[in-house]
Amino acid sequence: MNKIKVSIIGSTGYVGAEAVRGFLCHDKVELVHLTSRSFAGRKFSDVYPVYRGICDITVEDLTPEQVAEDSDLVVTALPHGVSSQTVPVLLSKGCRVIDHSGDFRYKNLSTYEGSYKLEHPHPELLKEAVYGLPEFYREQLRTARLAANPGCYPTCSLIALAPFLKAGLIRKDSIIIDAVSGVSGAGRKSDLAYAFCETDEAFKPYGVVGHRHTTEIEEQASFLAGGDGTDIRLTFTPHLAPFKRGMLATVYCRPSDSFTDVTAEKINAVYNDFYKDERFVRVLPGKELPDVKAVYGGNYIDVNGTYDPSTGVIKLFSAQDNLGKGAALQAVQTFNAMFGFDEGDGLLTTIRGV
Amino acid sequence: MNKIKVSIIGSTGYVGAEAVRGFLCHDKVELVHLTSRSFAGRKFSDVYPVYRGICDITVEDLTPEQVAEDSDLVVTALPHGVSSQTVPVLLSKGCRVIDHSGDFRYKNLSTYEGSYKLEHPHPELLKEAVYGLPEFYREQLRTARLAANPGCYPTCSLIALAPFLKAGLIRKDSIIIDAVSGVSGAGRKSDLAYAFCETDEAFKPYGVVGHRHTTEIEEQASFLAGGDGTDIRLTFTPHLAPFKRGMLATVYCRPSDSFTDVTAEKINAVYNDFYKDERFVRVLPGKELPDVKAVYGGNYIDVNGTYDPSTGVIKLFSAQDNLGKGAALQAVQTFNAMFGFDEGDGLLTTIRGV
Amino acid sequence: MNKIKVSIIGSTGYVGAEAVRGFLCHDKVELVHLTSRSFAGRKFSDVYPVYRGICDITVEDLTPEQVAEDSDLVVTALPHGVSSQTVPVLLSKGCRVIDHSGDFRYKNLSTYEGSYKLEHPHPELLKEAVYGLPEFYREQLRTARLAANPGCYPTCSLIALAPFLKAGLIRKDSIIIDAVSGVSGAGRKSDLAYAFCETDEAFKPYGVVGHRHTTEIEEQASFLAGGDGTDIRLTFTPHLAPFKRGMLATVYCRPSDSFTDVTAEKINAVYNDFYKDERFVRVLPGKELPDVKAVYGGNYIDVNGTYDPSTGVIKLFSAQDNLGKGAALQAVQTFNAMFGFDEGDGLLTTIRGV
Amino acid sequence: MNKIKVSIIGSTGYVGAEAVRGFLCHDKVELVHLTSRSFAGRKFSDVYPVYRGICDITVEDLTPEQVAEDSDLVVTALPHGVSSQTVPVLLSKGCRVIDHSGDFRYKNLSTYEGSYKLEHPHPELLKEAVYGLPEFYREQLRTARLAANPGCYPTCSLIALAPFLKAGLIRKDSIIIDAVSGVSGAGRKSDLAYAFCETDEAFKPYGVVGHRHTTEIEEQASFLAGGDGTDIRLTFTPHLAPFKRGMLATVYCRPSDSFTDVTAEKINAVYNDFYKDERFVRVLPGKELPDVKAVYGGNYIDVNGTYDPSTGVIKLFSAQDNLGKGAALQAVQTFNAMFGFDEGDGLLTTIRGV
Repeated sequence: MNKIKVSIIGSTGYVGAEAVRGFLCHDKVELVHLTSRSFAGRKFSDVYPVYRGICDITVEDLTPEQVAEDSDLVVTALPHGVSSQTVPVLLSKGCRVIDHSGDFRYKNLSTYEGSYKLEHPHPELLKEAVYGLPEFYREQLRTARLAANPGCYPTCSLIALAPFLKAGLIRKDSIIIDAVSGVSGAGRKSDLAYAFCETDEAFKPYGVVGHRHTTEIEEQASFLAGGDGTDIRLTFTPHLAPFKRGMLATVYCRPSDSFTDVTAEKINAVYNDFYKDERFVRVLPGKELPDVKAVYGGNYIDVNGTYDPSTGVIKLFSAQDNLGKGAALQAVQTFNAMFGFDEGDGLLTTIRGV
Repeated sequence: MNKIKVSIIGSTGYVGAEAVRGFLCHDKVELVHLTSRSFAGRKFSDVYPVYRGICDITVEDLTPEQVAEDSDLVVTALPHGVSSQTVPVLLSKGCRVIDHSGDFRYKNLSTYEGSYKLEHPHPELLKEAVYGLPEFYREQLRTARLAANPGCYPTCSLIALAPFLKAGLIRKDSIIIDAVSGVSGAGRKSDLAYAFCETDEAFKPYGVVGHRHTTEIEEQASFLAGGDGTDIRLTFTPHLAPFKRGMLATVYCRPSDSFTDVTAEKINAVYNDFYKDERFVRVLPGKELPDVKAVYGGNYIDVNGTYDPSTGVIKLFSAQDNLGKGAALQAVQTFNAMFGFDEGDGLLTTIRGV
Repeated sequence: MNKIKVSIIGSTGYVGAEAVRGFLCHDKVELVHLTSRSFAGRKFSDVYPVYRGICDITVEDLTPEQVAEDSDLVVTALPHGVSSQTVPVLLSKGCRVIDHSGDFRYKNLSTYEGSYKLEHPHPELLKEAVYGLPEFYREQLRTARLAANPGCYPTCSLIALAPFLKAGLIRKDSIIIDAVSGVSGAGRKSDLAYAFCETDEAFKPYGVVGHRHTTEIEEQASFLAGGDGTDIRLTFTPHLAPFKRGMLATVYCRPSDSFTDVTAEKINAVYNDFYKDERFVRVLPGKELPDVKAVYGGNYIDVNGTYDPSTGVIKLFSAQDNLGKGAALQAVQTFNAMFGFDEGDGLLTTIRGV
Repeated sequence: MNKIKVSIIGSTGYVGAEAVRGFLCHDKVELVHLTSRSFAGRKFSDVYPVYRGICDITVEDLTPEQVAEDSDLVVTALPHGVSSQTVPVLLSKGCRVIDHSGDFRYKNLSTYEGSYKLEHPHPELLKEAVYGLPEFYREQLRTARLAANPGCYPTCSLIALAPFLKAGLIRKDSIIIDAVSGVSGAGRKSDLAYAFCETDEAFKPYGVVGHRHTTEIEEQASFLAGGDGTDIRLTFTPHLAPFKRGMLATVYCRPSDSFTDVTAEKINAVYNDFYKDERFVRVLPGKELPDVKAVYGGNYIDVNGTYDPSTGVIKLFSAQDNLGKGAALQAVQTFNAMFGFDEGDGLLTTIRGV
């Protein structure tokens, strides 16, 4: 069988580089082009020495048209506002695309434009794009030209919330998501705020009102609950923690009237039932709780929940690697869904033990 | 003036050792006895080499009676259940005491006994003990024989909540405290769970239902709101983060009917007004948010808050050093209140810059 | 083709668990038994939750005889003194063995017994065992029954020194190896010395005289230089650094009379020439220097060197993952050599990008 | 008594900020001006929020003349090449100066100019400047106008070597210094190389040939050995380690003919004898070895040594805080020597326990 020709635009940021790792491990993929403006002409392994001897492809500065010419699928890891201009070119040349920006994640144009303070140049693509969470959209992905890979916080939050939203087991008016990300979430850049001496032994909230992922979570949460994407408002607070990779969400919500006699065991059972066929969503047994350590380097997301009878609050927990299931490895899973491969192809041995 | 003779029982755990650091820096204090069972006979600086040449006192294994004999004040850093038996002996010998356990923090006996699964051998002392948060109880501390130093999470949570509870600005039925602690909060022990390779690059919730600090926060929150200590139930979730020292609380609550037209500016103003005379509570300016990095090594606690108009949720943030304001340096502040010294004595230069 | 049946004795320590990771990734291997005394009866993924859904094999407490019964190859990750008793049983039952202890690494019995303060119960096996550094012993490994996987520091040191010792380019009487290991090198144990709060932000030398790896390096260095294993004495100093995985050696030596007009370029050329066919030894280009970051999670070892004309000292540098090339992934490479597979099988995608 | 008026030029880098911390703690000092180009007009506590309420002085952009006008002592934390132009102005206005750059550390002009690739605009000051290591130059510092605060690596190396060089106990032709620094040594800057995700879990050598501190160590080592500053060549290799603050040197050398029957005990005794009156040099007892953890935040430097009879190599170890004894706190000690205060003033309680 011919291998699928995959190119990665924006390959030298942390998400792009993790996409390289993911697709390198995939035996049905041939990496064709890795592009980057800043590092064009250098080998990928000069930018990331860990890849010396493993991926010595020369990074190029190509136009979308050039990339499209000999690629079946293009992964774009570009800033929002740039993706919305690059992706249509790739599609017009016949490539399928998995995009990592926020530009194609929304169905509701005004929500996008309000959140990103941008006018969308190709609003018609919002309808066509499929939200790249295979657990919920794998059927649509199979034939999608364009997959919009979810944000890291949305993936972590939605996987935790989905079984309860879909079954109407929680109230939609009082959801609070308190989340924590590793530093790689800020991207690869020379910024004093992310310098070792400023970040190590530090921990702080940021973007505490109006973080863009809030509206992305709200829209998808609404869809999961059977809504039109505009009827849920929830509270979201991200924090920055001193580790490289990883993300944990602690979600607070209240049972709806239809969820009676709530217990931790019932919550665990809801998860087990809902995700019983999902290999990358691991429902932890009993009272075991997610830890970012246990998802490092992989495409797995661990979930569990509990109930506080004293206050009537349900607590849901989910942990993932923000670059893995939260970004580029999820793109590989989506790729598998799009091209009809086993969803685990290339993704089962990326974890790190210790 | 004669110096106050201070002894520390349980001086070689992290809290006890931080108490040593705090009282060493205090020019009106003479450290008399440092006790420890495990390290008796060794110099304190053999246990903590950083103190070589700074505190070479020999650690002793003494009875409470022996310690009491030549001490004006005894700081106890003992497990709960042990403090409740040791402290009464110290008091009976005429010492004043600052205790770090949960044994004297509650006014309501049944709340204590329910939370700690212990029968209290000296319930009469619960009434006498003063909760060692000088910001709220400094008058009572002035003459107290026994101060019950608050838990780290309660200090962090209560300082954040107090101005709003006291003024009736928030609803008491929907408070959620999501908090994060550094690893030193687990104490100094040989436990695989806190080994470097198990804790570095990790982040996880723990004690997610029924953590003891929940009831401690509830009782004091009730007092702050004018209640009898039993009328508030709140949701509390602690997490463990990969840094040595530090604690951050993110508190979610809703405005009461009397708090109208809520804005971040108003929340900041409430804080500024309430804490304007408190040197250790730093209300951050504008939209600046607390970071555990900025309180490392000191007795300071940084607070600020914001308002999410989309959901009507108030978010309050507070950061402290869990061993500092969260434990042993707060004990120094309490000591100052008890002995009539300036509350800042010995506490102004313990921070670390970088 | 039938898969090779591999079992791992002592599978729940860090080295054993990394062996699990390594052999899991190998498509010609079937993992048969994972043994452990402490965790028998639990799933491997209960001990290491990262493996949930990936390796849920139940850990067993089996005798060597039981393990041998249905294994082609047994990997032993046992303390020295235990391996020397277990391995002969496995061999006698017809298994091939890769052992991770020091018990079979020496050819000279008295060096072993002096270094380990033990009498060897099976000295006849010292002659038979092949030192498991495929770069130097792959021919012998092909038919070996017993491979003695090298120590982490010896691998790192010998790969750096080999080209110069073999060609007689350096003096044998003044070699100094200054090396640094991550904390996982100390093993998985509840020990205050390796607690997060004791190890983070710490850096110290240890075992500064008589560390056992010294004699192991000396014997193999002598063989590389054409000696009988007893004619080299060198200086070795290990240090403990605050990261989980990784090892770096800085080697100081002086050119022999036959190495004239030494330059950094010549040193680089010696490395390139010597290791040109070795896929896991990466000679860095130009003046680029090894960094433990770049070998994390893999079986690669990066080397380069320079020359200080002011003092006539050659500096050699090598970096590896102490659990990877320094231990369990090297065992996979050795396995490949022993069973005639491509040496890279299962080892090319274990790295971590960021 | 009037307080000494101290100003700090370049106060917002890590060294400058640590000088602020040091002089803030000194009760005989009044901080007058803190200068910085980048942050002029902002409060020092806006740049370093940890100082909120502790040091809220407004940072200014002043000329050296303006600073000199109302300062008794000026601490300069400027790049080399800038200091050599600023310091003469300060001196000409009657200020005493402690400079942190390399510009005044050398006696031999050509060594300076060769190492720094700069022509010195005021070579006459090289003779006058006193090397700011109080342990060796306190008499000269008493009357010095200009103290050249040593480099961090030189302080760490020279304190380790001095007793042996002064007494002629080691050979001068084979000294090797292998050293490790925390990341703050690179300064406060937006540089990808020092970003958290690039530095955490990393460890690497750098500047492996010709690092400027080599010649600084050589010159002072020569003076200690009674030479003219030009007769010692030694090998020096710095490494970067993933912690904020701290530095450790491992020094390899060989006994001279006059040092017979070398043992670890004798080495320890040499240290104890030489440093018996030095409060900031702590000779560790017995076989205890320095750890950067134990010097964090203070002006202390811990030393000890051992002897490897197998190779005849002496190993010396020293650990300090690179920003403390290695930079700005040593400047406070030097200040005390210059102004006739107790050398410990302001320096005894800056450590951090855990």
